[in-house]
Amino acid sequence: MSGSARDASPDEQVDAFRAIYPVTVDIPVAWGEMDAYQHVNNIVYFRYFETARISCFERVGYTSLASQSGYGPILAATDCRFRLPLVYPDTVTSGTYIGDIGETDFVMHYAVMSHRNGRVAAEGKGRIVSFDYGAGCKIPLPDEIRLQLEQLRRRD
Amino acid sequence: MSGSARDASPDEQVDAFRAIYPVTVDIPVAWGEMDAYQHVNNIVYFRYFETARISCFERVGYTSLASQSGYGPILAATDCRFRLPLVYPDTVTSGTYIGDIGETDFVMHYAVMSHRNGRVAAEGKGRIVSFDYGAGCKIPLPDEIRLQLEQLRRRD
Amino acid sequence: MSGSARDASPDEQVDAFRAIYPVTVDIPVAWGEMDAYQHVNNIVYFRYFETARISCFERVGYTSLASQSGYGPILAATDCRFRLPLVYPDTVTSGTYIGDIGETDFVMHYAVMSHRNGRVAAEGKGRIVSFDYGAGCKIPLPDEIRLQLEQLRRRD
Amino acid sequence: MSGSARDASPDEQVDAFRAIYPVTVDIPVAWGEMDAYQHVNNIVYFRYFETARISCFERVGYTSLASQSGYGPILAATDCRFRLPLVYPDTVTSGTYIGDIGETDFVMHYAVMSHRNGRVAAEGKGRIVSFDYGAGCKIPLPDEIRLQLEQLRRRD
Repeated sequence: MSGSARDASPDEQVDAFRAIYPVTVDIPVAWGEMDAYQHVNNIVYFRYFETARISCFERVGYTSLASQSGYGPILAATDCRFRLPLVYPDTVTSGTYIGDIGETDFVMHYAVMSHRNGRVAAEGKGRIVSFDYGAGCKIPLPDEIRLQLEQLRRRD
Repeated sequence: MSGSARDASPDEQVDAFRAIYPVTVDIPVAWGEMDAYQHVNNIVYFRYFETARISCFERVGYTSLASQSGYGPILAATDCRFRLPLVYPDTVTSGTYIGDIGETDFVMHYAVMSHRNGRVAAEGKGRIVSFDYGAGCKIPLPDEIRLQLEQLRRRD
Repeated sequence: MSGSARDASPDEQVDAFRAIYPVTVDIPVAWGEMDAYQHVNNIVYFRYFETARISCFERVGYTSLASQSGYGPILAATDCRFRLPLVYPDTVTSGTYIGDIGETDFVMHYAVMSHRNGRVAAEGKGRIVSFDYGAGCKIPLPDEIRLQLEQLRRRD
Repeated sequence: MSGSARDASPDEQVDAFRAIYPVTVDIPVAWGEMDAYQHVNNIVYFRYFETARISCFERVGYTSLASQSGYGPILAATDCRFRLPLVYPDTVTSGTYIGDIGETDFVMHYAVMSHRNGRVAAEGKGRIVSFDYGAGCKIPLPDEIRLQLEQLRRRD
């Protein structure tokens, strides 16, 4: 934002966010997601990440592949940096893009944008492993999935 | 629906639902809300009800009254009849209207409409008691709240 | 309690509770189950009910029957009356007994006992329907389940 | 465990776990914590971490300090590596010890031990920042908290 003549509005920030994250989902913050500190509880951010992750799996064809072949994704690790407390009422956009892609795994980046603030409330990532549910072991990423993941890749 | 020349589409059903329930909130079903039966877990329906309830409290001025005076609402009882299993992906409209209004309490009716099916997935109600948080006891419904509740009332 | 020489202690109340409810599960209240009102959120009580329900299904052999034959239980309706706010830290005992048993359904009663207070924090019930998952329709209660349910029955 | 004449039993593994983690909480896995993959959902592991974190805050006196002075802890970041899927029925022990302690923050390590398997199901950590809720800014760790944290410290 530095060097701009004026600060961007929350709406403009949300638009800018969507331009960076190729897969996004809008989610209304539920009152009941707040905890005794009167902020959205930390585990709910991971639910927001999950919602974007599942949407991304659908986009790259992983959901249908898994149901047909038993070759699917497994979340091996995830993390989150909390930058802004969220409160009800608000709507967040949970977004994701793909980072490093390995032989049998890849990194998915997440961020949660608060519409109320026009600021990113949390950022994180997940490491997803390519798995053969039937055999119970990791396998090389299926070619068709790798191709689709490349379309959603972003190098920081 | 009997006697109609054709069945209403899901979109028409959602519109009809909104005409009945004066307070409604649209909520995307999260994948993670499904349980091991691969349906949305039963407790999540009560979260959908709660989201409509909080929205209704805001509409009638109960949220601001409670923060100013300490006179607020308490959920004393609630129930739900499950009519349709919900699955991801779907969006629901959670709606509410007011039923019987007593001296110190009132009934709030809930329903959750599935956009995917164009059918009501669950119905229920809650009994809300007027409470003085400071004194720790129930009190007559504040007049300004009663007036607003009357606007959202519906006799079955 | 009226007529007793002294009030029963919380521990005695928990013991008395266990004598009434033939299926019980002890559950530590999690801090994160409290909401912005700094009480355990209403939907969590239904999670406590569910935990007792699943335990009861195991006790009567419904879990193994469902996995073998596809004849299983479905929760058709449930309700809860909130009598006492729960706060962390506490441990609750969630208990259940069987009420009316019909041709294709039965009633399960629930209660949640707070160890901290030695008092029942919530009561409710569920209507459980006997279902053939394969055929997608309700069926008469399997005889072996009915027999077991009778063992856990209590007439109020 | 290498070099041992025999494998340790699950119970022995849980005992060994308790010897490493100075703050532990036992938590029964709820059936309803499983998702459509029929494993405990990823966000629930962070709830298990949180339960151990809150217990640790109480142990070091942070809970009472925060309520008295407004000097309290804030979770700035957290991560989890999933090593074993959890399923109902099981009981987990969620444990924590303190890692690096800085001027205004410290690291808390977490792990979740499955009693069913006698194996660690997940490991992670959190970065906790010392905060003045009233002033809305981070502050040096209060001396009495730092002293208590040192007692729970473990160098890997």
